[in-house]
Order: sequence, then structure tokens, then C-alpha cells
Amino acid sequence: MIERIAILGTGLLGTSVGLALRAAGFRGSIVGWNRGPEGAQQALAMHAIDSIAGNPIEAAHTCQITLLAVPIYPTLDLMEQLSAVLGPEHLVTDVGSTKAQITAAATRLFNTPERAAFLPGHPMAGKERGGAELGDANLFRGAVWLFTDDPAWQRSTTAASLAASWRELVSAVGARVIDIDSVRHDEMVAWVSHLPQFTATALSALLEDEVGYAPELKDVGGRALREMTRLGASPYSMWRDIASTNTVAVERALMKLEQRLAHIRENLRTPELREEFERANKFRRD
Amino acid sequence: MIERIAILGTGLLGTSVGLALRAAGFRGSIVGWNRGPEGAQQALAMHAIDSIAGNPIEAAHTCQITLLAVPIYPTLDLMEQLSAVLGPEHLVTDVGSTKAQITAAATRLFNTPERAAFLPGHPMAGKERGGAELGDANLFRGAVWLFTDDPAWQRSTTAASLAASWRELVSAVGARVIDIDSVRHDEMVAWVSHLPQFTATALSALLEDEVGYAPELKDVGGRALREMTRLGASPYSMWRDIASTNTVAVERALMKLEQRLAHIRENLRTPELREEFERANKFRRD
Repeated sequence: MIERIAILGTGLLGTSVGLALRAAGFRGSIVGWNRGPEGAQQALAMHAIDSIAGNPIEAAHTCQITLLAVPIYPTLDLMEQLSAVLGPEHLVTDVGSTKAQITAAATRLFNTPERAAFLPGHPMAGKERGGAELGDANLFRGAVWLFTDDPAWQRSTTAASLAASWRELVSAVGARVIDIDSVRHDEMVAWVSHLPQFTATALSALLEDEVGYAPELKDVGGRALREMTRLGASPYSMWRDIASTNTVAVERALMKLEQRLAHIRENLRTPELREEFERANKFRRD
Repeated sequence: MIERIAILGTGLLGTSVGLALRAAGFRGSIVGWNRGPEGAQQALAMHAIDSIAGNPIEAAHTCQITLLAVPIYPTLDLMEQLSAVLGPEHLVTDVGSTKAQITAAATRLFNTPERAAFLPGHPMAGKERGGAELGDANLFRGAVWLFTDDPAWQRSTTAASLAASWRELVSAVGARVIDIDSVRHDEMVAWVSHLPQFTATALSALLEDEVGYAPELKDVGGRALREMTRLGASPYSMWRDIASTNTVAVERALMKLEQRLAHIRENLRTPELREEFERANKFRRD
């Protein structure tokens, strides 16, 4: 039975997890902490958390499960601090968007029988803007929640049971759990998550330079333009860490897209264009 | 008073116009024609049209206003045929996605006091898939409907009055009319419509090659991936004509996007990345 969960970072994801746990019937206490006190106050006012902790280490110490819901580098920092003070009666998990570095840190700092357990997680859910006030109990409904547990880890019975409990809670909030190797995870999300984001950023930044002087042109573009640039609103603060921790895979994906765009550009009047459309149609059909 | 309208081409757009005119209270008759007879039957069954014409010329001859709702090259073909048989008591208009060639053909073939009038139009509305069965009376609600009338055209009083009537009908179906020069139109839609489409096609075709073997990865990508590739389903048959009639402007836009993606790729770990995100954020904010 999980009686107490700490949520460190009550931005969009942390606040949504708190709201979703409540909506799913979780009856224990949820203690929250946030670097900026307004975010924690907002989460408290929304009943996503029951109380605000003075500091993250103290919060984790009083809880069986601690969720790190901060960007990737702050996650790595908190992992260092928490591994020094928590024991095998604790589980720490996270929501970081890249998993190779976090999973490697978990091997180094957690997941031996004497230490706290760490379960690296990544819910494929979000919004193009962050903040506790956008927190949503239904954010994870139908979404995939990836875990990159290393099969070599040796956990105490308590730690293994806490990890199983967290997986159950993730299912209870409506997410579909998929397990995947952490390196494969990062290669895969480079294609299906990071490439779409950097493409939307590039397109939006280009359009700002080319037609930004005439905001009425956005209406002309209609739904197609709105959709293709929605992710242009995504914050640098989150994507900086992703770009820095998955650089090689993202570089490769971007390079391939540049080549694909050049191929289309060179074939606007040839039958090759048909093949590109058919390939694209197939991706949407399957 | 408009008593009879011909819709030549009862695909998604033609059928939607018929449905929208009815929903807006248009009481005259609507005669439809489609190259494939199933499309016309479908539009008739949906009450988007009242009758099916045996051939497009005959249909136009019996109507005050004729809407060409076919791709760009068939539009240019029909313009040639119709200009030979219609007089100043007729107005022809269209929905073609590029306007420089169609507007030049209108100058050559229509819009003198002795000839039929032509009003080049372009509703910024559509779906990623076509077909009469997707016809939607609300497709134009809130959309922009562009016209590229040439101020040098000399029209008879009747023709001018028919053009004014069509503009009123377009407003009645919920669209916002904007007038723009045809060459400027094509440059502008290259940015806000054609570039987003070819970007989605390139991204979808690339993802088909890279992760198409594993359809479950699409779930991992979630809403962001779905949105960024939705237009990947768009048909080549429509976009071929756009690529062929707006080649230079589309080439320029694609080249600029390739350069922008390369710039992001080369700066994944530098402060330049922040500037790209801030520019993209600004595009979405304004």
C-alpha cells in the first residue's frame, strides 16, 4: 500500500500526475515541491498535492515513492542528492524525455539491494505550454508511458514491490505501459517526438521571419498551418536538455529530413513527387 | 437573384459548397457534374446538388453562376471550353489553390464586356482526404476565401452583379472574403499553405522509411506526431498541380526550411538554439 508520494516539480506534468492520481482514487497523501513557490501554491490550490514541502530531499525522505517531474538536468542533479539519503524502502521515478543518461545514472546511483530503487519513466503526453495551471487529470488517458528498467538491476523485495505499485498507478491514470531499452528509447523518440518538435520550431521560426509582419496571413493558412506550428510554442527551457542529451540521434534525424525536403524540392515537376506522396500516404494509412 | 448554380466537380469542396449554400438558405437549383459518376451520385444523395448534368458545358450553359471545383489543370481546361460558349450573362468562378496561371487565363479568355465573367477564388479550407462523402456544410465557417480579381477587367453590369452575388454567397456560408493580387497570392500561400504541406509529406515519407515497420511507434509519438503528419495523407493528384503551377515560390520556401533545419542541427548545444525557439514562440504568440 502506497501511503505517501512526493512530486518534485509541480509544472504541467507533476500537477497533472497529482490530479490524475486523485481522479483514479489514490487515497494516500501527496506532498509537492517546486523550485518556484507559485507553481507549488497553484498545484495546492488545484488539489493536485495535499501539502508543500520545504525542500525536495525532506519530501522524498518521508515518502515511499518520489516522482521527479523536472527537466532532464535538474533530474540528474536530484538523483545525485537523493541517492545519498534514501534507502531500499524508497522508490524514485521520473518523467524525463531522454532516458540513456538518466538510466545510466540510475545504474550508478540506485538499484542495488542496499540502495533506493529508481524506475526511469517517460509519459508521452504534454502540452505545447507548461505550468501547473494547465494541469489536467486526463493528460495521460490513452497515452503511452515508457519505462527503461535495466534487467541487470538487483532490487530488494520492497523496492521491486514499490516499482510494481508505481506501474499500477500509471495504468490507473489511463496510460499504456511499454518497456523498452533506454538507448533504443532515445533513438526512437528522436524520430517520433524530437524530430516533429524541431521541425515545428524550424517552420515557425522561418514563418516568423518571412510572414511574421502580417499576422492576418495566419488566418489564411487555416487549420493546416495552426497544426504544423502548434509545437512552435514549446519552451526552450525543456527542449534545451533534450537537444543536449540526445544530440547524435536528433542530428541524424534532422539531416535526413533536410535531404528529404531537398529531394522533394528537386522533384516538384517529376514523377518522383508521386512516390513521396505515396510513401507519406502509407505512413498515415498503416 | 441567382436562380441556378452549376458545381463542376463534386469532390470534397464542390459537395461542401452545395451543402453550405443549402444550409445558408440558398433557394435556387444546384446542378452538379463530376468526372466520375459515383461522386455526382454521392453529392445528389447528400442533397448537395438537385440534379446531375450530362456534361459540364451543358450544365454551365443553363446556370448564371458556374463553380469549377476540380484540380488546377482541369480548371484551366474547363476555362478554355467554357469561354467559347458562355456570354456576359454568365459568371464562372473556381476554387484553385494557385491563382497566377488561372488569373492570367481569365484575362485571356473572360472579363471583357462581350464575354462571360470569371472571378478567381480560393477558399482556404479542406481536409487531408477528399471525396464527396466527406462533404461538410460547415467547411467554410470561419475560413478565409481569397479572390484575385484583376482591377483592369471590364465587366458588363450583369457580370459585375453576378460577381457581387457570388461574394455575398461566400460570406453567407461563413467565409471571410479577402482580395489579393494573384502573384502575391501564390507567393503567400507558398509560405502558409504549400510549405506546411510539403513539410508534412517529407516528414511522413521519412518516418515511413525509418519507423514504418513498427506502427505501434505512432502511438508513442502521440498527438504531436499525429498533427505533424496529418497532412501526409493528402493526395498527390491535388498537390501535383500545385507543385507544377507554383514551383519557384515553393522551391524557395523549401530551400529556406532546409537551411533553417541545418542551422538548428548545427546548434543543438549552443545558445543559438534559444533564439530559434524564441522566434518560433513569437510566431505562435502574435
